[in-house]
Amino acid sequence: MRKVFSLTLLFLLFSSLTAFAEEPEIKAAEVQRHADFLWTLIAAFMVFFMQAGFALVEGGFTRSKNTVNIIMKNMMDMSMGALSFFAIGFAIMFGVTKTGWFGTTGFFLSDFAADKDPWVLAFWMFQVVFAATAATIVSGAMAERTKFVAYLAYSVVITGLIYPVFGSWAWGSLYKGSGWLEALGFIDFAGSTVVHSVGGWAALAGAIVIGPRHGKYVGNTVKAIPGHNLPLGALGVFILWFGWYGFNVGSTTAASTDIALIAVNTTLAAAAGAVGAMFVSWSKFKKPEPTMTLNGALAGLVGITAPCANVMPGSAIIIGLIAGVIVVISVLFIDQVLKIDDPVGAISVHGVCGAWGTLAAGLFNTDGVTMKIIGVQLLGIGAAFLWVFPTAFILFKLIKATIGLRVDEEEEFNGLDVEEHGMEAYPDFQIHPSKA
Amino acid sequence: MRKVFSLTLLFLLFSSLTAFAEEPEIKAAEVQRHADFLWTLIAAFMVFFMQAGFALVEGGFTRSKNTVNIIMKNMMDMSMGALSFFAIGFAIMFGVTKTGWFGTTGFFLSDFAADKDPWVLAFWMFQVVFAATAATIVSGAMAERTKFVAYLAYSVVITGLIYPVFGSWAWGSLYKGSGWLEALGFIDFAGSTVVHSVGGWAALAGAIVIGPRHGKYVGNTVKAIPGHNLPLGALGVFILWFGWYGFNVGSTTAASTDIALIAVNTTLAAAAGAVGAMFVSWSKFKKPEPTMTLNGALAGLVGITAPCANVMPGSAIIIGLIAGVIVVISVLFIDQVLKIDDPVGAISVHGVCGAWGTLAAGLFNTDGVTMKIIGVQLLGIGAAFLWVFPTAFILFKLIKATIGLRVDEEEEFNGLDVEEHGMEAYPDFQIHPSKA
Amino acid sequence: MRKVFSLTLLFLLFSSLTAFAEEPEIKAAEVQRHADFLWTLIAAFMVFFMQAGFALVEGGFTRSKNTVNIIMKNMMDMSMGALSFFAIGFAIMFGVTKTGWFGTTGFFLSDFAADKDPWVLAFWMFQVVFAATAATIVSGAMAERTKFVAYLAYSVVITGLIYPVFGSWAWGSLYKGSGWLEALGFIDFAGSTVVHSVGGWAALAGAIVIGPRHGKYVGNTVKAIPGHNLPLGALGVFILWFGWYGFNVGSTTAASTDIALIAVNTTLAAAAGAVGAMFVSWSKFKKPEPTMTLNGALAGLVGITAPCANVMPGSAIIIGLIAGVIVVISVLFIDQVLKIDDPVGAISVHGVCGAWGTLAAGLFNTDGVTMKIIGVQLLGIGAAFLWVFPTAFILFKLIKATIGLRVDEEEEFNGLDVEEHGMEAYPDFQIHPSKA
Repeated sequence: MRKVFSLTLLFLLFSSLTAFAEEPEIKAAEVQRHADFLWTLIAAFMVFFMQAGFALVEGGFTRSKNTVNIIMKNMMDMSMGALSFFAIGFAIMFGVTKTGWFGTTGFFLSDFAADKDPWVLAFWMFQVVFAATAATIVSGAMAERTKFVAYLAYSVVITGLIYPVFGSWAWGSLYKGSGWLEALGFIDFAGSTVVHSVGGWAALAGAIVIGPRHGKYVGNTVKAIPGHNLPLGALGVFILWFGWYGFNVGSTTAASTDIALIAVNTTLAAAAGAVGAMFVSWSKFKKPEPTMTLNGALAGLVGITAPCANVMPGSAIIIGLIAGVIVVISVLFIDQVLKIDDPVGAISVHGVCGAWGTLAAGLFNTDGVTMKIIGVQLLGIGAAFLWVFPTAFILFKLIKATIGLRVDEEEEFNGLDVEEHGMEAYPDFQIHPSKA
Repeated sequence: MRKVFSLTLLFLLFSSLTAFAEEPEIKAAEVQRHADFLWTLIAAFMVFFMQAGFALVEGGFTRSKNTVNIIMKNMMDMSMGALSFFAIGFAIMFGVTKTGWFGTTGFFLSDFAADKDPWVLAFWMFQVVFAATAATIVSGAMAERTKFVAYLAYSVVITGLIYPVFGSWAWGSLYKGSGWLEALGFIDFAGSTVVHSVGGWAALAGAIVIGPRHGKYVGNTVKAIPGHNLPLGALGVFILWFGWYGFNVGSTTAASTDIALIAVNTTLAAAAGAVGAMFVSWSKFKKPEPTMTLNGALAGLVGITAPCANVMPGSAIIIGLIAGVIVVISVLFIDQVLKIDDPVGAISVHGVCGAWGTLAAGLFNTDGVTMKIIGVQLLGIGAAFLWVFPTAFILFKLIKATIGLRVDEEEEFNGLDVEEHGMEAYPDFQIHPSKA
Repeated sequence: MRKVFSLTLLFLLFSSLTAFAEEPEIKAAEVQRHADFLWTLIAAFMVFFMQAGFALVEGGFTRSKNTVNIIMKNMMDMSMGALSFFAIGFAIMFGVTKTGWFGTTGFFLSDFAADKDPWVLAFWMFQVVFAATAATIVSGAMAERTKFVAYLAYSVVITGLIYPVFGSWAWGSLYKGSGWLEALGFIDFAGSTVVHSVGGWAALAGAIVIGPRHGKYVGNTVKAIPGHNLPLGALGVFILWFGWYGFNVGSTTAASTDIALIAVNTTLAAAAGAVGAMFVSWSKFKKPEPTMTLNGALAGLVGITAPCANVMPGSAIIIGLIAGVIVVISVLFIDQVLKIDDPVGAISVHGVCGAWGTLAAGLFNTDGVTMKIIGVQLLGIGAAFLWVFPTAFILFKLIKATIGLRVDEEEEFNGLDVEEHGMEAYPDFQIHPSKA
């Protein structure tokens, strides 16, 4: 009854307004506002669903003895991350800023409590899932060897502090003032740098500090450690691609006709990324390599995240294609030359391709390509690295020195599932149970 | 061609209207109406997707010999449930009511056939997926031992009768009259009681009547029976959380700015529920327990379902946190003290936390906390139990006495997949097929 | 900052407009246009997600030695398909047509580059995921034995040529002129014929040309080759059902109240299809058969795709029920009488039930059932078969004669995963890893 009441009321209201014919324009603006809320929130829900995608990609591409742990880490990225972003992250990122370096108002959503503007809540909802994404990227690079409690500590700090500070430079504030990078004209529409490179550089710091998994680098040999469930990993990639429409297209945070171009660019870049990575891997390994191809789609998506609103569809294909090529080269370079052990290629997909996408936003800019904009884009890319990498590096060193960062050798051998959580991922899995 | 025709027509229409400048307000109201339809239907689709989540949670957290059966039960909850709700459920729940105890019009959607109001269809679409949710909850508590045909009989009755009758008390009618609980001011915005407790108490009745699985309680020993696929179960939890945004936020059945608060509260309660359950399980078992943590997120979601529209974000955190604590205690109490075998914790998650959420809607009510509203909330909680538990208990006893409720011992041992459906869940699963 | 700027601007704009009270109708029309974009794009994203559903259904219902290959094929259906549809498919299907047999403008989205109408992009986004769906259907019927490179060649041709040509007959053009079938009044609202039968008849041609899997037909014996992961397959079906709401309901490509009827019809037909197939299989095999039941839901969905907008809910149940019956009979007939090896039943689900749905759109038409409309529907069904089957047949013969269509016997025995991609689906899958 209650549920249809508002509609009935609305009609009565409009019927009466028709009679008096007062201020019709406000009504259309109100409907537009409702459409903006709808789109921002639906997009946020789709971005939330990316958490499932990250959990599956990371879990599927690593060994079955660490899968429960990966699930727990992803669930906590979102859960502790949401509480952390509620308490302080949102205020630092979008609070009123005088300096352009961080916000100082709106802790614990106190601004909503004060003025009851529901837009603050809609905007928070969209932003909290972005913050959780930045956190979850790190999980992949440090998989299969990180202590759970250490990971929790880290996750709260990135969602509450490291990510929001850079975010405030590029996207702040919701109210008054703007970030110093934004003031220079920095283009990062949906977060190639703000979300992905930030996550990627923190992942790089983490992977360096924690060191490779046992058995990964033995003497001069680089051993491939295969995952345990490619179908789950692939489902994760499809879920991420789906959720990315919320991520990129939703970043309008408004219902407009602009969303069509962003959706098309996102599609074409992802497609071109997958195709590019497939052919490069085919030429290198003589076979079209599945994990490279799947990472290629993600690379294309990361690459188009910054430029999605200000490049033409043809450029999106080029951007995605290059991202697909880059990711294969970068994964091999980091794995085999730098000998940094990143089990799922998170540093390459998010860090490196995030930087590429941010540069591409300048190079293919439909509003005009100038040396100035290229310079600002490079400045933003550099600033992200210079803020995130050292901060995260120090943080991981601090964690290592206090509560400990890495499980011990026996725990790593037995798997984090049993050691950290007392439970296997597939305890009763029987292929022919009736014959057991 | 046809697809863009309507748009073109629309523009012609508006162009001509601009010329005459007649009744502009109606236009905005029409657009609002379209937005209401969009949101109600998109939310319904998201709630539909929860069926996949329930199937995965239940299948993943039980043994691999019963997985096909669980898939079939969940598929039929939706399929037979939709037909049952079409034929009679919707009429009983939302038909014109004179008494406030059940509706009496609109069987087989006859009201739509009569007046062609499309809102009836949009509303039906949103409600049918709620009805299927109530049914599917029971499946978990009775998993691994229920005869398929008995389950079908039960599923049709809950979707067509037990659920709609209580629903009519709290939410009816769509047309004329209202339910007796609603008339008292009962707050259950999205169904902590109407959907979750109703499903939970029916699950309790079912679990009692059918008895525990063989090997669960041997003498004084309570044996843990582990599931077979935690990653699938975890994916199910992420899907449920995603779908819950449709469930709670969609319950406005209107596009408005109110949806932002509901989305934020839903997020924070789920997060707090997961965190709460994790820390309680950590303190009890010395390790952060994954199934408890995942159930904690669901507990937070069930808890916030009633109060999501009329509490502040800070309260949502408290509500979710308490739900996360309650669910751990309740699961252990039901499993080890009451010795009722509920393989996935459905009674605790949906029944108990549904009651908590309904009480919380009174305790944290932003419209004012009075003894009267607390009393009404308690009355609603009690009424749900007193209607559902005895009715479902009698129904299961009737099924037991006629077509039989439980598979025989050999069938239970061999698994329901082979015995009931002639097919295993993983018949050709080979880890190294090329070496086979 | 940028993200809320547009909203703020909007309010300023409307405030000023209120003062002058100029052209209020245009504002409402603009909001409607935004809502049309939103719905068309959200629906497109849901249809995109169906790619994950197809990958899981096909992968789950086939053997574990070919799963990686299936994932790669589905990923490339979308990725190479999007590039192919961008380059030529969209132009052929929706470009300006003089003859009614194919379009001739808009290659590489050049029309958007020319006039910047964002609707072209929104419409492209919706259509590209339909094209990818048509391609992906074929993958299932040819699973477990097709060379990857041959499949790529085929996939590009169906997305860029075979599908768009028929599409232009029934749905073209976006601009000027219309297809010859459309001009006759052919009803295929969301593509029972345009997408599903087209995919199904191409699948039929492919399955005939490539021949059955080794071991499928030995002498007069028809061997069942079970799949490897029914839970994944079932998840795929749930994802497809969810995505189908985008497919059918989104085919309005406009936000209107019409969407409610389409959603309800889609739900009831899917439910009735699952129920129908379950009872038919139950009566035939003495047990409710899970893969038949799941295919029944898909059959109901394919069946309602053409008629979803112009039949009553009661008719939708009948259409779905009949589709559920048809699919069981057709699968058995094709498998055991025609001895065509279609591992997932794609020909029956999409080809045969697509034809049934198209006929049903005439038989149950709420706008009046006439001999003429029945004739036109039959003509459309026949035209699809006569265009697609021979074209695809020749194409597969050509591929066979040049780059080769089928892997050799040893590769088929070892599995396409290792042979074609150098990687297994579950390389590290260990049930009790800590005891390894």
